[in-house]
Amino acid sequence: MNRGRLIQAANGQIPCDLVIKNVQLVNVFTKEIYPADIGISEGYIAHVTQPGEEGLSGEEEYDAKGKYAIPGMIDTHIHIESTMMNPTNFAKAVLPHGTTTVVNDPHELANVLGLEGVKYILEASAHLPLRFYVLAPSCVPSALGVETSGAAFNASEIATMLEWERVIGLAEVMDFPGVIYQSQRMNEILEVARKKGGFLQGHVPFLTGRGLSAYQCSGVNSDHESIDTDEAIYKLRAGMVLECRESSIAQNIKALAPALKACNYPPNATLCTDDREPDDLLREGHLDHVIRRAVQEGIPVLEAIKMCTYNAAQLTKLYDRGALAAGHVADVVLVEDLTDFKVNEVFIGGKLVAKEGKMAIELAAPEHPVESRNTITLRTEPNADTFQIKAGKPEKVLVNVIAYDKENPLLTKLAKVELPVKDGKIDISQNPELAYIGILERHGKNGNVSIGLVQDLGISKGAIASTVSHDCHNLTIVGRDPEDMAMAAQELVKSGGGIVCVADGKVLAKVELPIAGLMSTKSVEELAPETSHLKETIKGLGLEGQYPLLRVATFALAVIPEVKMTDQGLVDVLTQKFIPILPE
Amino acid sequence: MNRGRLIQAANGQIPCDLVIKNVQLVNVFTKEIYPADIGISEGYIAHVTQPGEEGLSGEEEYDAKGKYAIPGMIDTHIHIESTMMNPTNFAKAVLPHGTTTVVNDPHELANVLGLEGVKYILEASAHLPLRFYVLAPSCVPSALGVETSGAAFNASEIATMLEWERVIGLAEVMDFPGVIYQSQRMNEILEVARKKGGFLQGHVPFLTGRGLSAYQCSGVNSDHESIDTDEAIYKLRAGMVLECRESSIAQNIKALAPALKACNYPPNATLCTDDREPDDLLREGHLDHVIRRAVQEGIPVLEAIKMCTYNAAQLTKLYDRGALAAGHVADVVLVEDLTDFKVNEVFIGGKLVAKEGKMAIELAAPEHPVESRNTITLRTEPNADTFQIKAGKPEKVLVNVIAYDKENPLLTKLAKVELPVKDGKIDISQNPELAYIGILERHGKNGNVSIGLVQDLGISKGAIASTVSHDCHNLTIVGRDPEDMAMAAQELVKSGGGIVCVADGKVLAKVELPIAGLMSTKSVEELAPETSHLKETIKGLGLEGQYPLLRVATFALAVIPEVKMTDQGLVDVLTQKFIPILPE
Repeated sequence: MNRGRLIQAANGQIPCDLVIKNVQLVNVFTKEIYPADIGISEGYIAHVTQPGEEGLSGEEEYDAKGKYAIPGMIDTHIHIESTMMNPTNFAKAVLPHGTTTVVNDPHELANVLGLEGVKYILEASAHLPLRFYVLAPSCVPSALGVETSGAAFNASEIATMLEWERVIGLAEVMDFPGVIYQSQRMNEILEVARKKGGFLQGHVPFLTGRGLSAYQCSGVNSDHESIDTDEAIYKLRAGMVLECRESSIAQNIKALAPALKACNYPPNATLCTDDREPDDLLREGHLDHVIRRAVQEGIPVLEAIKMCTYNAAQLTKLYDRGALAAGHVADVVLVEDLTDFKVNEVFIGGKLVAKEGKMAIELAAPEHPVESRNTITLRTEPNADTFQIKAGKPEKVLVNVIAYDKENPLLTKLAKVELPVKDGKIDISQNPELAYIGILERHGKNGNVSIGLVQDLGISKGAIASTVSHDCHNLTIVGRDPEDMAMAAQELVKSGGGIVCVADGKVLAKVELPIAGLMSTKSVEELAPETSHLKETIKGLGLEGQYPLLRVATFALAVIPEVKMTDQGLVDVLTQKFIPILPE
Repeated sequence: MNRGRLIQAANGQIPCDLVIKNVQLVNVFTKEIYPADIGISEGYIAHVTQPGEEGLSGEEEYDAKGKYAIPGMIDTHIHIESTMMNPTNFAKAVLPHGTTTVVNDPHELANVLGLEGVKYILEASAHLPLRFYVLAPSCVPSALGVETSGAAFNASEIATMLEWERVIGLAEVMDFPGVIYQSQRMNEILEVARKKGGFLQGHVPFLTGRGLSAYQCSGVNSDHESIDTDEAIYKLRAGMVLECRESSIAQNIKALAPALKACNYPPNATLCTDDREPDDLLREGHLDHVIRRAVQEGIPVLEAIKMCTYNAAQLTKLYDRGALAAGHVADVVLVEDLTDFKVNEVFIGGKLVAKEGKMAIELAAPEHPVESRNTITLRTEPNADTFQIKAGKPEKVLVNVIAYDKENPLLTKLAKVELPVKDGKIDISQNPELAYIGILERHGKNGNVSIGLVQDLGISKGAIASTVSHDCHNLTIVGRDPEDMAMAAQELVKSGGGIVCVADGKVLAKVELPIAGLMSTKSVEELAPETSHLKETIKGLGLEGQYPLLRVATFALAVIPEVKMTDQGLVDVLTQKFIPILPE
């Protein structure tokens, strides 16, 4: 950026490169709207006219025809892995919706590929007009000692990442017990992050009172996990930055809007999307959708805009954006109407990148070796026998099973079921409420295979396999039929990862995710119908309910109570200790 | 700070060191007030209770008895040289008023002592409970090439200072033409400051429109010089941070309050005091006084409090303060009543430092070599003849004089007056509207002596001498009588600087300022009556009007139009060129 030229353009000594004329300027400082011209030079805003000033002229002029101009919107918390897209396709999916800056937490990639995964996301996003920032994943793996990840981050890896360009802080610190009770790992990681300064992002579902204060005293100052109005009021009063989330699996704006109103729309609140599935992105949008939801829930549109512009820039310490003001980046979004909030033109650094809901420029994804590497490494090829539980000679045996809660399908308890043994293997054929679960370590670390049983999961036939399996993304398969399970597993090995449904020896639905077993090279237009169909298929196999992909992705998530399967075995989530499948 | 202990206290695992009980907590995030206890550990806030929570207990407890608790107040712009006090006495003067953090611009000291002066102010404040920060003076000297300063700062000095502890940015960038028209000096200094990040403070009186945008594009983002409502609205909309000033010589809150209201109390507004004379400090207060003025002018008290707490912390990037919240410094101010805003207890880092308007702890000023050095270095001892203007043989001569504006006593124009010559010297005895002005270079650089005439200054007899003489603080004397002028000059040489009034061979009033010719080692209680008496004496000598010290301090200020005397000669302020005393 030639600052001298920018100053000259601001001062009127040379023409602006571009003038966006005839906007209704949304002023995030004063919460006013007034007619203005926006003069741009060197990719920055040189001057914004105020009422009474004469209009601007420039080398190029773009007539906004009275549309509302807002600053480019900033998503303070997202995992692009959940969109299943690489940075280029992700950018093409969100830019037309007015999102111009994202702050990405790549902990899924980190769990698979470690530092190389984080480097990949930085390298693959470097060329984008979308301003793509990364936070150093703080909890890799999230639950220590109960599952095998592809990598582990300690203070030294955090320190390394914090020196990389576009890494602006520490990603959601999920291990809040570790923070509050001062585990060595968290203490060391936070020490490094505090020293560097930057954005220390938090994650504290349900936490208020003394625990929240202890967490804040560690220096972490935000949270996107609030789902309850009173909890949100508590956090806002406590001075945490409430990153108000509307994601594919958590629509919190409804509960958070009354909190924001009760707290007089405080400065410590932003918007975020966290996890957006491709079909939701295509159908609903991105931050524009969150704004629309906010307005629907009674938040004044100017407050909602301020949250994802000015407030977000302050939280993330990206001071050169979040406002239409001289010296700020020329990221300008034009919106026809503030109520239906339909984004039209999107300028980044003064360049028109999207218009009328579509990209206005080509974005070519650079080749990257990570995108063509198969990261599924198994020690043995899975077959039907892999998924049997051997029980020896007895005719029947007591089995510890993961019993799913029928009301809340994310929660589980330990249950004991007496089952017949046939040919030395447990027989579930007479128990339609049961299914096998198998987790195969696939990072090439130890070749672990752990097989167990789930109860009331819902699956009635076939098998579902996934390498999107929080948090360690090992190859996870559930099913009634070990043959289908083996086929599903093999499908994913072939494609380097993904999510697949198999029944009666046929693939019913498959989304291939060859990048680290998490992401695709396809566009949102290609992925959306695939994920739609996949979700319907999962439901068709018996996993009913609102969030089929979430259910699949959490089969092995060893932090959601009370029992879970990981590649290392059956885990008591609350004690983080192992339970034998066959109790003595 | 033992963070582990703080986290434990927050979490309730160990008792807090101190609990301030029974406050009415002013929440700067949500603009609510509710009853609370504040738990403190390791000098930081460990926990603040919210309605419904049980009270806290601690090793020590302090009963606030229902007083309002606000965060310690932050002055974003002050020159403590104007208070005439060293840091210790300054701290004793302001702490009881609830000011807990100040951001000081030591450009007066820098003009006299260069880097050593800035180092002195840092060293002399290191021991204080008052949180004392410094900005690197950006414009030393302010007007290049027309006066002799004690030092000059270029980019390299700025870079040096920015590495020092408690130097948090660049001080008010006064040379706005240099910024806008990109002088080499300003370009280089701003480059260094932008690279470091931190707070880039501005100074742009009357500037709006393209010039303001150009200034903003340089990265400087604040201004305390707005005196006009419309100008303030412009700057607030433009995204400049308006540092709203109420000083001893500029009471701007009256004009700024309507701007803040019109702009919906935006986040980009703080409070500051800039220059506070000792008698005003003692009689009125500091930021508490500014808050009272703000309320008098119709600003809601919660907005005023937020301006000098939360907003100020955001502007200055001192994120660990400005709010009563876990993890923030335990700087807590208790106020009986939010309307009369009388500050009672002041805690800094959890220690009670002031109570009922008085210090509660001893503060001993450390010895410092700068405080005992006489910085007045003249090449010749001044006598009555020093102040005569030699004109040779003619019987009368035309003289270029500085003609003061009768309406606005800070403004001057060039006037030509024909005067008799007696014994080879200009004779003003028949012109009571005239007086001599002499500027003696006193930094030991060149021994310059420049003598000229002023018209309608007001002085009717005697002489006034000052080493507080913006911006270069050379020894400045005005008077009708050269004998009195010589005596006044000699008085200041003796005491190492100060401000003195002499008439008929007697000292009528004197404030000794031995520290760099700018500051005293006396307390506010000692200085207040001295400055009061001095101001009355100055008025008694004929310099009527509201701000006698300002008038004296600006006798040689070569940036206020249109003509001024400096040690180098008579300066045309607008062209920055010299004018001969005796035109050909």
